Amino acid sequence: MELDLSKLDARLDDLDADGYLVDADSTDADQYYLSGFDAPDPFLTLYDGSTHLLFVRSLEFGRAKRESRAETVERFTDYGYDDRLDEYGRQEAAHRTRAAFLDAYDVDTVAVPPRFPLQTADGLREQGIDVLADGQDTLAAVRASKTDEEISHVRAAQEANEAAMAAAEELLGRAEIDGNRLRLDGEVLTSERLKEEIEVTLLRRGCALDETIVACGSDAADPHDRGSGPLAPDEPIIVDIFPQDKATKYHGDMTRTFCVGEPDEQVREWYDLTERAYRAALDAVEPGATGADVHDVVCDVYEDADLPTLRDDPGAETGFIHSTGHGVGLDVHELPSVGPDGGELEPGHVITIEPGLYDPEVGGVRIEDLVVVTDDGYENLTDYPVSLVVE
Amino acid sequence: MELDLSKLDARLDDLDADGYLVDADSTDADQYYLSGFDAPDPFLTLYDGSTHLLFVRSLEFGRAKRESRAETVERFTDYGYDDRLDEYGRQEAAHRTRAAFLDAYDVDTVAVPPRFPLQTADGLREQGIDVLADGQDTLAAVRASKTDEEISHVRAAQEANEAAMAAAEELLGRAEIDGNRLRLDGEVLTSERLKEEIEVTLLRRGCALDETIVACGSDAADPHDRGSGPLAPDEPIIVDIFPQDKATKYHGDMTRTFCVGEPDEQVREWYDLTERAYRAALDAVEPGATGADVHDVVCDVYEDADLPTLRDDPGAETGFIHSTGHGVGLDVHELPSVGPDGGELEPGHVITIEPGLYDPEVGGVRIEDLVVVTDDGYENLTDYPVSLVVE
Repeated sequence: MELDLSKLDARLDDLDADGYLVDADSTDADQYYLSGFDAPDPFLTLYDGSTHLLFVRSLEFGRAKRESRAETVERFTDYGYDDRLDEYGRQEAAHRTRAAFLDAYDVDTVAVPPRFPLQTADGLREQGIDVLADGQDTLAAVRASKTDEEISHVRAAQEANEAAMAAAEELLGRAEIDGNRLRLDGEVLTSERLKEEIEVTLLRRGCALDETIVACGSDAADPHDRGSGPLAPDEPIIVDIFPQDKATKYHGDMTRTFCVGEPDEQVREWYDLTERAYRAALDAVEPGATGADVHDVVCDVYEDADLPTLRDDPGAETGFIHSTGHGVGLDVHELPSVGPDGGELEPGHVITIEPGLYDPEVGGVRIEDLVVVTDDGYENLTDYPVSLVVE
Repeated sequence: MELDLSKLDARLDDLDADGYLVDADSTDADQYYLSGFDAPDPFLTLYDGSTHLLFVRSLEFGRAKRESRAETVERFTDYGYDDRLDEYGRQEAAHRTRAAFLDAYDVDTVAVPPRFPLQTADGLREQGIDVLADGQDTLAAVRASKTDEEISHVRAAQEANEAAMAAAEELLGRAEIDGNRLRLDGEVLTSERLKEEIEVTLLRRGCALDETIVACGSDAADPHDRGSGPLAPDEPIIVDIFPQDKATKYHGDMTRTFCVGEPDEQVREWYDLTERAYRAALDAVEPGATGADVHDVVCDVYEDADLPTLRDDPGAETGFIHSTGHGVGLDVHELPSVGPDGGELEPGHVITIEPGLYDPEVGGVRIEDLVVVTDDGYENLTDYPVSLVVE
């Protein structure tokens, strides 16, 4: 994939920096994006108009030359690391070796992502390199704008997500109500059983995932609770799935709220309101609108119905207590923000729209789609019905 | 779980630091260990003899109070963040808020892990806090020594691993040789098919995993190649599985090398040599021995057979080209090292022993068990036969 790093070039100019440096393994999205290389141990990637990799050991050397997008691939041993060990010990030898690598590319001042490791930064500073934490997180901002190829990767992950959601809903549809329990094939139906079905479905479609949320009752009132134990009839069950395609590393993200049986008046009202907020937010998505604008639309809907929001009360613990959405790509949470600090939306931004309401007395309700901002609005990358009651 | 943080206390004394600070989400093992809390967004954990959490928003507040091991749980808003926004903007307001939090606990000098985020460190320094990158990575060293409870978590993950390895071997055992391909139920048997079987087995036992290695032929000659495509008869197939128990977050780790059909002379010789190196290394594991000692035993076996090692030639790209092993716990690669820099082994250290040989002309062979160092030697946490040819 060809990267458009013009924003990064401009930022380096602004900072009067000679290059941008990443020190991370490839679970770090900046690292995987910039290097185009997948490795389990940290390595350096320097961008100075072209891309240069530096590995501590030789283990990844051959594969990096074949697979990475870098112009040069080198090792500590190529910059005299082994000769420094006796005199300086491992840590200072490593700092001096990294400085020698930067020196070879005439880099005296280097910008780094905000979460760049302190020990590497301090070590380079001791060797006379200026290291600037990039408060604008420019590489993350570059990653926010997806190419057509990246959008197709997200779409593929979201298609697997739709299959997994359907598998979950199908289990719920087959469940029988037995008092305050759901039963499937005689067994009590649990959050764990539903997650297993979801995750096996995703695995068979080439996706991995760290976690899935299947939360019912008071579990669902905490947006970050993954849920556990028996699922209850007549209560909202939040199913939030965010798989990562193992081949491309891009994510999907979708939430539906289901109810088996008869939701009470309150839950129906919350669901209808959340669906209205979700549709209003989608209508607001277009280039030039900010993430904050879209978030405000959701807050308006909820506040008009006299429900608490963080906009209205920063200490709120019930009501609408998170942002409207976030970017999705190599990270499942990335730029741009669709919240109070969200900047201007641009074509190619892939974002979630996910209003929700929470209260331990009621449970939780959330509806989430994944969309891409287009030249004149948005395209919804999610093809799944919005409906509370499971038939 | 009760943590023994006496090593951390001693290190803080040595550094004349008032506390140890972590800024990370809970995928960071230091953060999860010290805070006892699982959250997807970064938060601060301060250890000053007791443990204090600081969250940016209220979202995790209630759950953190219930679930974390912290003595205090607080939010940015409790330290005046919102009042600073207009005057200082988000970033400096955040820095000043973190400094106010440290000040409330009388922390002027703080030690941090080597990979602590630079922007947070620089921001605190501007507010007059001394921030020291802990070059000894003391918290990781503390995590290396496992309690009985942690060992039981590792054991549970390894039992799931054994089931997954058995499922993989069973598929290989049912495969038919068809020319240079293996077939199962008429279909060409691929690395992907075997990985799916492994991963579904693990999921059904409560384990997640990022990656599994099923590598055959020249793929297997690169220890970090995950493998892809059809599996061949008569060639060594490396199966390396490192699941994470989803409930406890502790890992297992095991590798076996299988051959369906007739391995050639060279592969048999490499396997026998690797099994000898593996048994010799196990025999060397005991408290007081260093990781370097155990690694040397493996290098001796290979070098005596005139095979290249990194010890003999730091630029070697074939032969024994990695360390003998590593610690396993919340991270799948953690301290202690069982390699050239490995320090003294202590009871409670959980380590892999995994010698191997690699050459694109031959393929790869590796045997890996997971063991815990005991008072008088080691206990093997792995119960799986060591045998090359699949019956």
